Amino acid sequence: MTPLTIANKYDVFDKTAANYVALSPLSFLLRTAKVFPQREAVVYGNRVYTWAQVYRRCRRLASALSKRGISRGDTVAVVATNTPEMIEAHFGIAMAGGVLNAINVRLEADTIAYILEQGEARVLITDTGFAETITAALVKLGRQDILVVDIVDEQADDNKTRLGSLDYEALLAEGDPEFDWSLPADEWDALSLNYTSGTSGRPKGVVYHHRGSYLMTLGTIADWHLPAHPKYLYTVPLFHCNGWGHAWTMTALAGTIICCRAVTAAAIYQAIAEQDVTHFGGAPIVLAMILNASEADRMPIRRPVEIMTAGAPPPTAILEGIEGLGFNVTQVYGLTETYGHTVMCTWNEDWDALPFADRAVIKARQGVAMTVTDSLRVVALETGEDVAEDGKQIGELMIRGNTLMKGYLKDPQATVKAFSGGWFRTGDLGVVHPGGYVEIKDRLKDIIISGGENISSVEIENVLHHHPAVSLAAVVAKPDEKWGEIPCAFIELKENINVNKEEIIAFCKQHLAGFKRPKEIVFCEIPKTATGKIQKHELRKMLLKV
Amino acid sequence: MTPLTIANKYDVFDKTAANYVALSPLSFLLRTAKVFPQREAVVYGNRVYTWAQVYRRCRRLASALSKRGISRGDTVAVVATNTPEMIEAHFGIAMAGGVLNAINVRLEADTIAYILEQGEARVLITDTGFAETITAALVKLGRQDILVVDIVDEQADDNKTRLGSLDYEALLAEGDPEFDWSLPADEWDALSLNYTSGTSGRPKGVVYHHRGSYLMTLGTIADWHLPAHPKYLYTVPLFHCNGWGHAWTMTALAGTIICCRAVTAAAIYQAIAEQDVTHFGGAPIVLAMILNASEADRMPIRRPVEIMTAGAPPPTAILEGIEGLGFNVTQVYGLTETYGHTVMCTWNEDWDALPFADRAVIKARQGVAMTVTDSLRVVALETGEDVAEDGKQIGELMIRGNTLMKGYLKDPQATVKAFSGGWFRTGDLGVVHPGGYVEIKDRLKDIIISGGENISSVEIENVLHHHPAVSLAAVVAKPDEKWGEIPCAFIELKENINVNKEEIIAFCKQHLAGFKRPKEIVFCEIPKTATGKIQKHELRKMLLKV
Repeated sequence: MTPLTIANKYDVFDKTAANYVALSPLSFLLRTAKVFPQREAVVYGNRVYTWAQVYRRCRRLASALSKRGISRGDTVAVVATNTPEMIEAHFGIAMAGGVLNAINVRLEADTIAYILEQGEARVLITDTGFAETITAALVKLGRQDILVVDIVDEQADDNKTRLGSLDYEALLAEGDPEFDWSLPADEWDALSLNYTSGTSGRPKGVVYHHRGSYLMTLGTIADWHLPAHPKYLYTVPLFHCNGWGHAWTMTALAGTIICCRAVTAAAIYQAIAEQDVTHFGGAPIVLAMILNASEADRMPIRRPVEIMTAGAPPPTAILEGIEGLGFNVTQVYGLTETYGHTVMCTWNEDWDALPFADRAVIKARQGVAMTVTDSLRVVALETGEDVAEDGKQIGELMIRGNTLMKGYLKDPQATVKAFSGGWFRTGDLGVVHPGGYVEIKDRLKDIIISGGENISSVEIENVLHHHPAVSLAAVVAKPDEKWGEIPCAFIELKENINVNKEEIIAFCKQHLAGFKRPKEIVFCEIPKTATGKIQKHELRKMLLKV
Repeated sequence: MTPLTIANKYDVFDKTAANYVALSPLSFLLRTAKVFPQREAVVYGNRVYTWAQVYRRCRRLASALSKRGISRGDTVAVVATNTPEMIEAHFGIAMAGGVLNAINVRLEADTIAYILEQGEARVLITDTGFAETITAALVKLGRQDILVVDIVDEQADDNKTRLGSLDYEALLAEGDPEFDWSLPADEWDALSLNYTSGTSGRPKGVVYHHRGSYLMTLGTIADWHLPAHPKYLYTVPLFHCNGWGHAWTMTALAGTIICCRAVTAAAIYQAIAEQDVTHFGGAPIVLAMILNASEADRMPIRRPVEIMTAGAPPPTAILEGIEGLGFNVTQVYGLTETYGHTVMCTWNEDWDALPFADRAVIKARQGVAMTVTDSLRVVALETGEDVAEDGKQIGELMIRGNTLMKGYLKDPQATVKAFSGGWFRTGDLGVVHPGGYVEIKDRLKDIIISGGENISSVEIENVLHHHPAVSLAAVVAKPDEKWGEIPCAFIELKENINVNKEEIIAFCKQHLAGFKRPKEIVFCEIPKTATGKIQKHELRKMLLKV
């Protein structure tokens, strides 16, 4: 990669400890605890910690883990919601040299056991609220050499069964609050391990490096235009892409992190009213929850609140409603592999004067490369060339930059494939609008190629979702001798509403070009993962059995 | 430095083109030109360029320089004020692989010749306003192999003599606006060369790397809490620490840079009124200029304007006056070696309620390490230990981080000395106040050690400056058999005011402890550099001759 260069007079300088320091998000905690020791850092119900206290607790955690044998490259798994312990884990584990593996609490025991096994977790810090699943996972894992530590959370009302040999506070008590830790020697060192959702097969272990999370923090501050001391409500699960890195970002800004165990409309309104929340993140479903809250749950929004949304474009109706309440929504796009947001629908003041409908169309686009994302391309599958900026030609989104994983743990083949050609292949298909704003159309593996035409399964699903009888629709390709593939729609109907296939097809005729209309309709319950994602590979299997 | 580490499962990942990209401020221009092509980028009188235009001009410059033989590691010198050409030089030269050497326009010909020689400049881009000095410098340099390019600025009224074989616009015309450039292969590559002011002997050539300027940009956005699209008035000369890096910072934010050839109160007020300036930087002397502007020069300040100030603490009276006008002042501290600001008097809301006098005392402190500055220490000279945070014990300020030079060009000895012990030794002496805020007291080489006591020359000078007859005072150590050293004061008196040595000493008795009082007084003209800095080494020589 590096071109041959001839050394010149500027090339004689060695890097020294004075002028070359590993980029690591751990540095933000050190600085903020020193400059703003008395500011409120983490709030969770009656538990309120200052930055000085958070730092001492993180040092205790690091010290205790060190004493228990955790050192560079050891995995420490955490199964928890967004409680103070989870924030502390984002610093304390790495301060001991360990690698944080935050595991999705909604996964089934079998997958959790797989993750603990593949990640070689030496310690598991687990919230007792998930004791049942974790008990089963540990039985499946069958390893005795894993230290289990319980987080006992008063707000977790469902289960208080202890699984571990000690609880989290007892672990902290073992540690030294003045623990002498250091930044990693190399900013390329692993910081965390985040498993993909595994919609097809086993989840993959995405390894983050310190450099990436450090840059992610600074990039988020720049692109979200964050002020000093935001009050951030942590509704995004920290087990997804380390909560989009916001724990580190809020630390850098000496903000206040308002923890949140259960994401409900009431909890969000209450946090805004009582904690003066200025920023939070959430999928469009969270926006819908806020918008559709009961009168009893609502509280007044006294000043604009910024929402970062991801996972799907915010539907126009939801956008209109939520902005009317005093929220401003910014859509971002990313994957576990990109540390979360790497593309943002960066706003342009020129659009302020547009009618709402036009602004909503723009806000539904994923946008442009963020400041610390080096660059993105959308590449036509057939030619390998960049697509035209016409909002029509579909290609695969590829990304290059420093907020990209080291690779997939113990999966060199998948790693090489993901980075082949010097770009990270997102596996997402999209178009580029004039001006360079990307709009995602479908997953690469879900696109349907029928008679040589690319058909977006998402486009068909969007039409089906507008039919009043349809509760959920999923469209996949069915192999076909004549056309290569044809679109086949699986539909869950709403309760007490009847509709037949012909009516659905007639509805599609009104809204879709002929080649895009589903040629087969199947009414059934659609298979989903533990986290609620549709399993299209299962649908494809069903088609092959037919 | 790197501790021995045992490779683990996370250490197997190679860096690839997809996930490891050189950190370089050049990337900001590429992105901003793509996302905000039509926004106003650079304004200079009637000349207004959009970001698309700036980018095309920078590519033309890079292309033309490449065609003229400039490649990786070649120095391109620029003698210019803050005109659009200077902004473009901050991108175009590095896009060709070259290293920008922006030279202080106020230097004498002899020093400029030295800089061109030591830096091995292959091209000199020079504003015709400085033709006289540059002619002399080129004669002294005596090299024929340097391409001289004239910037012909309509606003430069003093001299339009052409020195070069072509002018800047003709050079641009040689270049391709679609020039295919690339980021440096290595973020440690040299980006620019900035000479120190050389208060003692020849100036030293400070080499900046791409990594540092990239991080400087993001750190400034975070710590100055910069919004989208600031309107930045460029009063800080771009030949000082690359204008504190703000050309790159404003590019990252798609701001508007308002150029400024001559920094006058009228120009500043006018830019605020007409260009809606939101941010600028300047030494306290610029603040005084604004405050003391004539009625004719003043214009109303419609919204708060942020000023970053450096070079000396803002005096209380100036701070009070300037804040009363609607400006907010943030003091920063840094040196050429630290890319400009690396320490900031980061504000704490707790201080909002303090009386003005108390806030002014805090604002006069240099402050704490900025977010991207890894850390700072103030180290007692005698013990090598960190000083107490008591606001009293004096030590040398040392800094570690990524916004630190590669080293001094062709001066390995000075480089090793500056970084000895793994910290950059600033040569500045200061105290640390409770809470960790640093206050600079003196230059290390200017401190006076008398009878075992450290005496700040700055403290004595501050007292002398309060005497109504004193125009300028400089205090240095004189060797003394009994005390080791004694303070000796050199004084320039105001015109038409007479005062004798006894009166000065009597005045000092009222304000200084006995050991701090100057034991000798010399009335004379104080020697200064071309840029107006006092040459204390010349004063010391004078004492030895006495």
